[in-house]
Amino acid sequence: MLYRPNPPISFTGAVLDRADHIRADADKLAELMNWRARLLRLDGLDPVIGDDGALVWGTLADAGEHDELVFLGLDESGRACFAPVSPANKGNPGPANPRLWGAMASLPAGDLATYGGARALVDWHARHRFCARCGYTTKLGKGGWQRKCVNMDCKAEHFPRVDPVTIMSVEWEGNLLLGRQPRFPAKRYSALAGFVEPGESIEEAVAREVHEEAGVRVRDVRYVACQPWPFPSSLMIGCHAYADDPAITIDKTELEDARWFTRDEVVYAMEALKTGAEDGAFIAPPPFAVAHHLLKWWIEQ
Amino acid sequence: MLYRPNPPISFTGAVLDRADHIRADADKLAELMNWRARLLRLDGLDPVIGDDGALVWGTLADAGEHDELVFLGLDESGRACFAPVSPANKGNPGPANPRLWGAMASLPAGDLATYGGARALVDWHARHRFCARCGYTTKLGKGGWQRKCVNMDCKAEHFPRVDPVTIMSVEWEGNLLLGRQPRFPAKRYSALAGFVEPGESIEEAVAREVHEEAGVRVRDVRYVACQPWPFPSSLMIGCHAYADDPAITIDKTELEDARWFTRDEVVYAMEALKTGAEDGAFIAPPPFAVAHHLLKWWIEQ
Repeated sequence: MLYRPNPPISFTGAVLDRADHIRADADKLAELMNWRARLLRLDGLDPVIGDDGALVWGTLADAGEHDELVFLGLDESGRACFAPVSPANKGNPGPANPRLWGAMASLPAGDLATYGGARALVDWHARHRFCARCGYTTKLGKGGWQRKCVNMDCKAEHFPRVDPVTIMSVEWEGNLLLGRQPRFPAKRYSALAGFVEPGESIEEAVAREVHEEAGVRVRDVRYVACQPWPFPSSLMIGCHAYADDPAITIDKTELEDARWFTRDEVVYAMEALKTGAEDGAFIAPPPFAVAHHLLKWWIEQ
Repeated sequence: MLYRPNPPISFTGAVLDRADHIRADADKLAELMNWRARLLRLDGLDPVIGDDGALVWGTLADAGEHDELVFLGLDESGRACFAPVSPANKGNPGPANPRLWGAMASLPAGDLATYGGARALVDWHARHRFCARCGYTTKLGKGGWQRKCVNMDCKAEHFPRVDPVTIMSVEWEGNLLLGRQPRFPAKRYSALAGFVEPGESIEEAVAREVHEEAGVRVRDVRYVACQPWPFPSSLMIGCHAYADDPAITIDKTELEDARWFTRDEVVYAMEALKTGAEDGAFIAPPPFAVAHHLLKWWIEQ
């Protein structure tokens, strides 16, 4: 059964046409950089949100003299949409900040998808101005979907990163394994997660992470749903797995706690996000996180 | 239904314990760099294969004076396993070479998994000796799972890349859409594929790639299986999707051809890989490619 979240998972549901064929076409790209083109307004890496609750756009005239422009795609009217990479922008490889959580909850789905992609790209450019191969400077290429080394002996091409992360609901006899990181709000528990490493499959990464963080062995890993998560460039791959032995050994460098919750506790915690009840066993992950959908999917099974 | 390939998909089935907790423990790591430790022999980025058909290992005494060492993990005897990053190694972001195809077909599964992870890491180090943020040199950290900028005003941390790629079987009324790239051997057709970009889900990437490359719209994307593919650092995410309209428009910058094949043609082509028959409608992707497993899975449905 395919999981069809409704509403769609946050940061998915793109409304721009990425028009990939235009990126390498310098003439076409120049032609699209006209007075109709739209420039996404950013406050550093944060979105600028208008009185109507939507993203604010300007024109290319709003770009700084030394800004590099990333081509995000075409909107439904065929206008080219860009995001600015300001020389002052130093990027931020850190996690989402609480101020952004409001934006994630309130922005229209299409706007959030546009912002997520733009943020990941602008952040990548800001943190990749030099060539990792030779140390020379790089310049933006292919409409912002590449950086190219200006050293003619190198000419290395660099591409934006997307870092696959596994995040998993783990089940043992009708109970669900959830953990909390020290930086979580009080009582919040969520699905365990970790980066997929070179040389391993998604299923192997799930098994390794659950064992590393909680000392639990899992089997029958299956894919449930995914979410691009631009803090800074993750692709959250949501999976489900089963455990045969509930004994937990917590890796305290990663997690503050990890526990099994009953189905009733999970159901109550998910309902409590709507009712505002504060007396549950834990506080569930918010609707804009893929972990929320993993819990929702699990309850519905 | 979970797909359980037998034998497992190439490059999966790791036999080393990654022992992640050791990476950041400099004392423990130094202790493991003893006379029992094993050093993977590499010819540039290619594997060195012994008369027994397995990977060849040496000791740390075989490392070059200026080699950096990547900690791959612990073997079943608790010996630490390393791979060398030689200063002469310039890395290679290109695709697999025909000489490697033999190794992929012949190496024991565990060895191939070890080699794949090691190659991706060594290649990444070789191509990331400088800081993308400031241009200074970087040095290996966390046992080779990080590079850190030596510029004390920067100190940026860089991590090995894993690039998620979607690869998909697309079905229309019992037929399968396959394409061929100009660099393929004669008559070879395989599943379409493309990188997941910042700001999109796996399902969105599948739909975008199939439309870009073949002009076909798909629905009901589902995950089937995945494979780490170290040329240079891909995570191949195999999916299946359905099309309602068979009209094809080929993007000639990406594909030489794309066609629908009947179920019988796919079954024959997969059998022909074993029998050596050359009169099929096309030559199927080889067993070490995840595309092969997508076709196998589809036939078995």
